[in-house]
Amino acid sequence: MVNQFRYEIPTAIEFGNGVINDLAEHVRKLGGTKVLIVGDPGVVNAGVVDKLSKPLEDSKIPYVTFSEIEPDPAIKSVEKGLNLAKEENCDLVIGVGGGSSLDTAKAIGLMLTNPGNIRDYVGINLVPNQAAPVIAVPTTAGTGSELTIWSVLSDKEAKTKLSVGSIYNMPTLALCDPQLTSTLPPHITAATGMDALTHALESYVNKSTQPISEGLSIQSMKMIAQNLRLAVVQGENSDARYQMLLASLIAAMAFNSTRLGLAHALAIPLGAHFNIPHGVVNAILLPEVMQFNIIGNVDKFAEIAEIFGENTKGFTKREAAEKAVSAIRQLKKDVGITQTLSDYGLEEKHLDMIAEEAMLSGNVPVNPVKPTLEDLKNICRSAMGSEVRETVTN
Amino acid sequence: MVNQFRYEIPTAIEFGNGVINDLAEHVRKLGGTKVLIVGDPGVVNAGVVDKLSKPLEDSKIPYVTFSEIEPDPAIKSVEKGLNLAKEENCDLVIGVGGGSSLDTAKAIGLMLTNPGNIRDYVGINLVPNQAAPVIAVPTTAGTGSELTIWSVLSDKEAKTKLSVGSIYNMPTLALCDPQLTSTLPPHITAATGMDALTHALESYVNKSTQPISEGLSIQSMKMIAQNLRLAVVQGENSDARYQMLLASLIAAMAFNSTRLGLAHALAIPLGAHFNIPHGVVNAILLPEVMQFNIIGNVDKFAEIAEIFGENTKGFTKREAAEKAVSAIRQLKKDVGITQTLSDYGLEEKHLDMIAEEAMLSGNVPVNPVKPTLEDLKNICRSAMGSEVRETVTN
Repeated sequence: MVNQFRYEIPTAIEFGNGVINDLAEHVRKLGGTKVLIVGDPGVVNAGVVDKLSKPLEDSKIPYVTFSEIEPDPAIKSVEKGLNLAKEENCDLVIGVGGGSSLDTAKAIGLMLTNPGNIRDYVGINLVPNQAAPVIAVPTTAGTGSELTIWSVLSDKEAKTKLSVGSIYNMPTLALCDPQLTSTLPPHITAATGMDALTHALESYVNKSTQPISEGLSIQSMKMIAQNLRLAVVQGENSDARYQMLLASLIAAMAFNSTRLGLAHALAIPLGAHFNIPHGVVNAILLPEVMQFNIIGNVDKFAEIAEIFGENTKGFTKREAAEKAVSAIRQLKKDVGITQTLSDYGLEEKHLDMIAEEAMLSGNVPVNPVKPTLEDLKNICRSAMGSEVRETVTN
Repeated sequence: MVNQFRYEIPTAIEFGNGVINDLAEHVRKLGGTKVLIVGDPGVVNAGVVDKLSKPLEDSKIPYVTFSEIEPDPAIKSVEKGLNLAKEENCDLVIGVGGGSSLDTAKAIGLMLTNPGNIRDYVGINLVPNQAAPVIAVPTTAGTGSELTIWSVLSDKEAKTKLSVGSIYNMPTLALCDPQLTSTLPPHITAATGMDALTHALESYVNKSTQPISEGLSIQSMKMIAQNLRLAVVQGENSDARYQMLLASLIAAMAFNSTRLGLAHALAIPLGAHFNIPHGVVNAILLPEVMQFNIIGNVDKFAEIAEIFGENTKGFTKREAAEKAVSAIRQLKKDVGITQTLSDYGLEEKHLDMIAEEAMLSGNVPVNPVKPTLEDLKNICRSAMGSEVRETVTN
């Protein structure tokens, strides 16, 4: 555990069914006179943007919508959205959607008040000025972007992802309405939920956590253990949706100041090169990374086994810790994530490149076990095969 | 549980042994050009203020010190400190000490940027403007004032306490250095630690909590269960001091948005009329209030029993919940708090007045069991007698 640490969540949280009905009031309180709504085409087509624009229209608050966002949003999207915001004199940004929309919206808000190009701020704490007011409205329960310092953006030409991390990149307000997640299809519910779990779990076992984040990680994992399966198989279960959106947010409160671990270190290059959805690649990697990490934090993995309902009575801590891995394998299978990295085209010949890119991540130094390049390749190899899934109940 | 809620902790936290060494840098980052240091005479005499003024002097940051603060700080102290700050053109306030010093410092910071008198803002969310920058440096592990919206101030003539609650009354920075608590005598360590426990526990079982606060309450209670006795009987145990200061802060993160319960509702008038230290009166009341509240939240009281190490195997939840009460009685006794309310002069004839004043508290509506005036009087009666303590191991 660290001795000295900083913990800071300046974002205000409004949470609950129906909170988006107060959107116009929040815009006014934050001094917004013209709004840029940033949402990906899926969110627009699903009619979610209408749920936000309606209250703005009713309150005569002008807005423009920007929806040129792909999954793994591009640096270019930020630049286009920023140009639109400037042309239209927008002074407040609303991001609505999953991680792609929120990360883009945050970066646009940041560039409204900072000089230069978003590329200048790749890294951590390099941004000089507070962003323009940003309201983040998540529609998936997983990214946690509504409550983090991070925007992860793709450089499509270079096939790489760039992370901008700054306290000034945190939204002013996280407006979290679980009803917006009620129509997510099962496979997205599963993938994003596994992403949230990876956040809570990697933060919990890593070397830079502290008791504030630990308490939040435990709470998030308990809620995911009890609700993720239900949210996947009973999409209309409003309590499960409520708990999952909140669990995702609580995981973000935990990891925002601790970083993560090897699953996220590997997920970034794997996602960039093989177009694997972020939640899916995390889900595939998580049990393999846990297996690798056990000996770096036996006690906590034993606790995780209990949180996920394993019977560890009579087990040693070391044995109980193994149960955490099988519990997560079972959960992953239960929610329908049965793919391997091979299914996305990963082959042995790619592993050097992936391992080398992953090793550069800020998530590596905090991981409970210090990996070699060969370790990272071995984790990928495990996640490419199918043998590991045989231990799970069929 | 509530459906819609707001959760907001704009205060940045710097935590760890040695963090006060960076004080001057924090003052500069916050734009402070002249500092008012607010600390009670005990803190000044213990040399703690010198630990803060030294780095300011080294960095040539001018400051003045205000120390006219009593326990249960008076409205008048705020007015005097404010006048000094204005005369000296101070633009940043540092509060150092226990709850009295921090509550006073926060109120002075608030009045530097708001019109009228601090009395105008008694209540919740009545303050129009953000306070001047305030750095809170706690020297006790209990109040949590470094991370709450509250300043509790005494009107000495009227023998009453007035509470100002505003998001703008939260410090800009909580600078929490556990080394500053290492010389606290056992009885203050015990009383303030029981205050922190009361915060975590009353928030956890009350009707306005939500999962963010619940996770934080559990974490805080676990840390108090493991460390309060050690901090009392091994004052020099730096790990126990570290854990207790952090537990107190985490409790504040929990209750800041949930309010508390009947122990705090009764503690305010009892403290005002009978001069009982705030932590002591909470410690005396807590087991009696828990006993009264069990039937409003059986499951959570059963969990609390486990957190405090009770063996509840084979027990019903209802039986386990009772064990929470005896666990807290034992803890209170172990840390040396054996007084009753009678020891402070409370008599049957005072109970109507106390119950009536307590009933006005905002902590009553959130309590898990709705009390009558007679219920409040009965809780006081239990806390006046000695019979209840017989159930505790001698």
